[in-house]
Amino acid sequence: MNQEIFTINNLWILVATILVFIMHLGFASLEAGLTRSKNTVNILFKNTLIPAIGLLTYAFIGFNLMYPGDAFAGMFIGLGGIGLSLPEGWNTSEYADFTFYTDFIFQAMFAATAATIVSGAVAERIKLGPFLTFSILYVGICYPIVGMWKWGGGFLDTLETPFYDFAGSTIVHSVGGWGALVGAYLLGPRIGKYTEKGMKAIPGHSIPMATIGVFLLWFGWFGFNGGSVLSADPGEVSLVFVTTAIAGAAGAFGALLASYLKFKTYDITMVLNGILAGLVGITAGADLMGPGEAAIIGFVGGILVVLGVVFFDKLKIDDPVGAIAVHLVGGIWGTLAVGLFGDLAGGAQVLSQLIGIGATAAFCFGTSWLIFFSLKRTIGIRVPAAEEIEGLDINEHGMHAYPDFAKQG
Amino acid sequence: MNQEIFTINNLWILVATILVFIMHLGFASLEAGLTRSKNTVNILFKNTLIPAIGLLTYAFIGFNLMYPGDAFAGMFIGLGGIGLSLPEGWNTSEYADFTFYTDFIFQAMFAATAATIVSGAVAERIKLGPFLTFSILYVGICYPIVGMWKWGGGFLDTLETPFYDFAGSTIVHSVGGWGALVGAYLLGPRIGKYTEKGMKAIPGHSIPMATIGVFLLWFGWFGFNGGSVLSADPGEVSLVFVTTAIAGAAGAFGALLASYLKFKTYDITMVLNGILAGLVGITAGADLMGPGEAAIIGFVGGILVVLGVVFFDKLKIDDPVGAIAVHLVGGIWGTLAVGLFGDLAGGAQVLSQLIGIGATAAFCFGTSWLIFFSLKRTIGIRVPAAEEIEGLDINEHGMHAYPDFAKQG
Amino acid sequence: MNQEIFTINNLWILVATILVFIMHLGFASLEAGLTRSKNTVNILFKNTLIPAIGLLTYAFIGFNLMYPGDAFAGMFIGLGGIGLSLPEGWNTSEYADFTFYTDFIFQAMFAATAATIVSGAVAERIKLGPFLTFSILYVGICYPIVGMWKWGGGFLDTLETPFYDFAGSTIVHSVGGWGALVGAYLLGPRIGKYTEKGMKAIPGHSIPMATIGVFLLWFGWFGFNGGSVLSADPGEVSLVFVTTAIAGAAGAFGALLASYLKFKTYDITMVLNGILAGLVGITAGADLMGPGEAAIIGFVGGILVVLGVVFFDKLKIDDPVGAIAVHLVGGIWGTLAVGLFGDLAGGAQVLSQLIGIGATAAFCFGTSWLIFFSLKRTIGIRVPAAEEIEGLDINEHGMHAYPDFAKQG
Repeated sequence: MNQEIFTINNLWILVATILVFIMHLGFASLEAGLTRSKNTVNILFKNTLIPAIGLLTYAFIGFNLMYPGDAFAGMFIGLGGIGLSLPEGWNTSEYADFTFYTDFIFQAMFAATAATIVSGAVAERIKLGPFLTFSILYVGICYPIVGMWKWGGGFLDTLETPFYDFAGSTIVHSVGGWGALVGAYLLGPRIGKYTEKGMKAIPGHSIPMATIGVFLLWFGWFGFNGGSVLSADPGEVSLVFVTTAIAGAAGAFGALLASYLKFKTYDITMVLNGILAGLVGITAGADLMGPGEAAIIGFVGGILVVLGVVFFDKLKIDDPVGAIAVHLVGGIWGTLAVGLFGDLAGGAQVLSQLIGIGATAAFCFGTSWLIFFSLKRTIGIRVPAAEEIEGLDINEHGMHAYPDFAKQG
Repeated sequence: MNQEIFTINNLWILVATILVFIMHLGFASLEAGLTRSKNTVNILFKNTLIPAIGLLTYAFIGFNLMYPGDAFAGMFIGLGGIGLSLPEGWNTSEYADFTFYTDFIFQAMFAATAATIVSGAVAERIKLGPFLTFSILYVGICYPIVGMWKWGGGFLDTLETPFYDFAGSTIVHSVGGWGALVGAYLLGPRIGKYTEKGMKAIPGHSIPMATIGVFLLWFGWFGFNGGSVLSADPGEVSLVFVTTAIAGAAGAFGALLASYLKFKTYDITMVLNGILAGLVGITAGADLMGPGEAAIIGFVGGILVVLGVVFFDKLKIDDPVGAIAVHLVGGIWGTLAVGLFGDLAGGAQVLSQLIGIGATAAFCFGTSWLIFFSLKRTIGIRVPAAEEIEGLDINEHGMHAYPDFAKQG
Repeated sequence: MNQEIFTINNLWILVATILVFIMHLGFASLEAGLTRSKNTVNILFKNTLIPAIGLLTYAFIGFNLMYPGDAFAGMFIGLGGIGLSLPEGWNTSEYADFTFYTDFIFQAMFAATAATIVSGAVAERIKLGPFLTFSILYVGICYPIVGMWKWGGGFLDTLETPFYDFAGSTIVHSVGGWGALVGAYLLGPRIGKYTEKGMKAIPGHSIPMATIGVFLLWFGWFGFNGGSVLSADPGEVSLVFVTTAIAGAAGAFGALLASYLKFKTYDITMVLNGILAGLVGITAGADLMGPGEAAIIGFVGGILVVLGVVFFDKLKIDDPVGAIAVHLVGGIWGTLAVGLFGDLAGGAQVLSQLIGIGATAAFCFGTSWLIFFSLKRTIGIRVPAAEEIEGLDINEHGMHAYPDFAKQG
């Protein structure tokens, strides 16, 4: 590769890195918007620290766990070292299509996503310390191990028909989704959510913040998926932009239809989550689909997120923002869709996709349970009932999110 | 063109695409901020669906209507097909300075803008279904037909002195502006706006949201105008950045001066709209002007927006966000300015600009009237008075935007 | 340099320009969030006009003062002319690694930052007119003079061991910080801040806005530092991205630790300011440090911001948003760190850094004092007490930021 293409590739991956970075503000806004104002400081506190945790742990160990190279690489786990040591020729095309530091920083921005997804599902009742502990372990160790299975050359990548996950429907979103499921289950529902009279909706305090969040996530997703091309190849990146845009749009309409049929109302929170489910859905095969297939995948994703929200409510697993439906259900759907549509479709691919989904499920469910359950049995993971009712902001942070305004819930 | 330049061009147009995408959040924030909190969910619902509508209708038919190629191209209407079918060599420089998909997605992001402009002018009283119907027809059919007249090689492009509209003062902003004018007129003013005692200001519920909206619009405008260079040519793109920045800045001061002289107050909403009017004004000739001319065009745009707001209020055309003054008045001004300043200035150009303005006016006024009037006579376009007074959020969506806060208007 | 690399460099600097632009929304959001809702319109009004002022004054005179070229360049002041006149070959690699207009617009976006920093420190009590007057003079004249000392080839650049300030810890942030210190001191504290019973915290009205602000600032900082490479060189830009990301993350933890030890609470405003202090700290040497050094610099910056806030409160210098601690203390720390860590570390460099810090301090303290004091003695700089208590929004702008919500402070 010549220096010009190397420079262009490098620039695009760096721009994509910034776009993934701003997704953390998207997650923060969405989660804060869909929860009550008495917990807003707490949510923003968590979501501000998560990218910081992600960057630092990924520099310390995550990057080396996920891309062990030849240093010590098995099929299931590997470790390339501790910290960031510059390889020879790190800033030339000898290293890759972009520099070592570009490689690291793009991957590091992805890493924190896993914990951010969990954050939404456990909101409004989890203790701060245990959540941060979970995040450090999950982002620093669990996420890169799963990532290594495919992107680091591990066993999912060396299957006869390799498991395929372009930008992480499974490797990023489902990893977060499993942690979210386990966390929400072990915590139990928020007080007042499931009563003898049935499920009670607990509306979020700011639809504008939730909307800002989803737009920022969609905005950033062009970098999340587009950067995963790992070059600035004109055909590939532009295809990924089109499928990403179309799937998000179709997801909005899938959720609009499903929620209207189900609830006879125009529910903006469902439309917002439908967009996200469409985006999560296309993520695994954004480079394999045409616009029509992207529309189908997004539309089905939008429908599934509505069914998912209803389903987990039936199980009394309380997920304040719908993160499990979006990221776990959407992630599984998108991963399977690689076997059903597009360039790789076929029975063998479906099987490989199922293997990837199953392996990730087993590992992430297991490790999440281990971490959350250990924390629950030792320091506890749930705030006292009185604190939950009064709000985490005043109890854990000694402040309100909106001190100038009277009634706040 | 070599592969390197092709790749750089392609990358820039894709980055510009993302910037235009985030303008939809800008519009959503601005419109929500400048209206009352009882209608905020409704506004965000519309503005979330609009880009989704734009992307899907543009993929289905709009792109082919706007750029018919040789398939079936008259002077006034053409159609290149249905859906997106890849031309030979779509991802090489044989197709254009960037790929077919890049071409599509950049144009698709523009498309939804037309409906978004209308949304602001008809806010707080239009029924959801009719608005979405209008949006689908206007974005899917009317906008691309006008666009084809110039950008698709139609009659405005083949005038002896071709009509000039660099990035769409007329073709995007006035198209939206005419729809906004017709919609606001046929709906009638909001209850309580024009009383026997004169005009009553109805303040928007969140100046921070409005401010966020304008900053995001300005941010995105660097992609809207800068991407319209249709290449990464260093001289042209950097010139467009400078004129875009300067015109927005000068627009702020034009509106500040005019509103201070008129109202003796420092009105932030006027300054915000002044920035937008400066940006709309420079859009038609952003590549033709120097910094000084950009400052004049922006400054005059800022003055005009204040006069426009006052003028439409005198006509009792109620536009809650000032969209008609910004996009229609600003769009006409910017289009004319191409004949008055810069590289193309001259009498023949003024005439061509007037032809373009007039043709767009006739077509957009006519088609908007046809659509809105048909809807008005059939299913109705305005919500019942009781619903308007109580707010559209609770009536059309069954929810509040800020459920945790007491008094809301 | 070939046309391809010239085009890539140009594109990156333009993208960086947009990123710096959106920092102004970040500053606006942060400052509005950390102050009371009765002053929000005023703050947003100021912060909307500041980038407009920056762009226009920098086009008129600032750029020529900062980069005088050979026209009239001394060691301490120079002037290349008035307005923007295109040099020969401005859009070719003969001019620089990017075009003249790119050069201008990137620098122009930086310029307004200095006034924006001051804005935060003087918030909630300064009169609008005097503040805008100060901003015009400080951004248009004082900032470019200091900038010329280093970036325009002035005396700090020609020291035997040249003063080093990669992207402006001193030249941008401390310049703003000194103005902030002088302004806050000459204005005096807000009513009720320092009482006989001690210091009273005056909480800001919206933690979400403050959080959005910091994320946007961090987002934009990748352009602020990354663009300061002044090319798209893959190795350099990617290194700067890594150090910028790591320093911000470490700053969060530095401030978390210091504020927890000091106040025994998880204070999100300190974490937010810690991120900013980490970013300010790395700015002077973002291209000289490795990830580990960036972590140390950021972490110490985070600690210093907490100590700084406490220190200035002890002096009864009332800075509502902590701007002095972030930008002045952080800027000094970052500038010194260039002598302590990384490629240039050493005694001679420490001395040169001290000379740069001292010269900037003397000049900025002096000129800020001159401007603010002159204004104080003539038209006055502080609003009347009754206006301060009722709020600047209703008194200076005749409107509320959130008219739909009842109690506002």
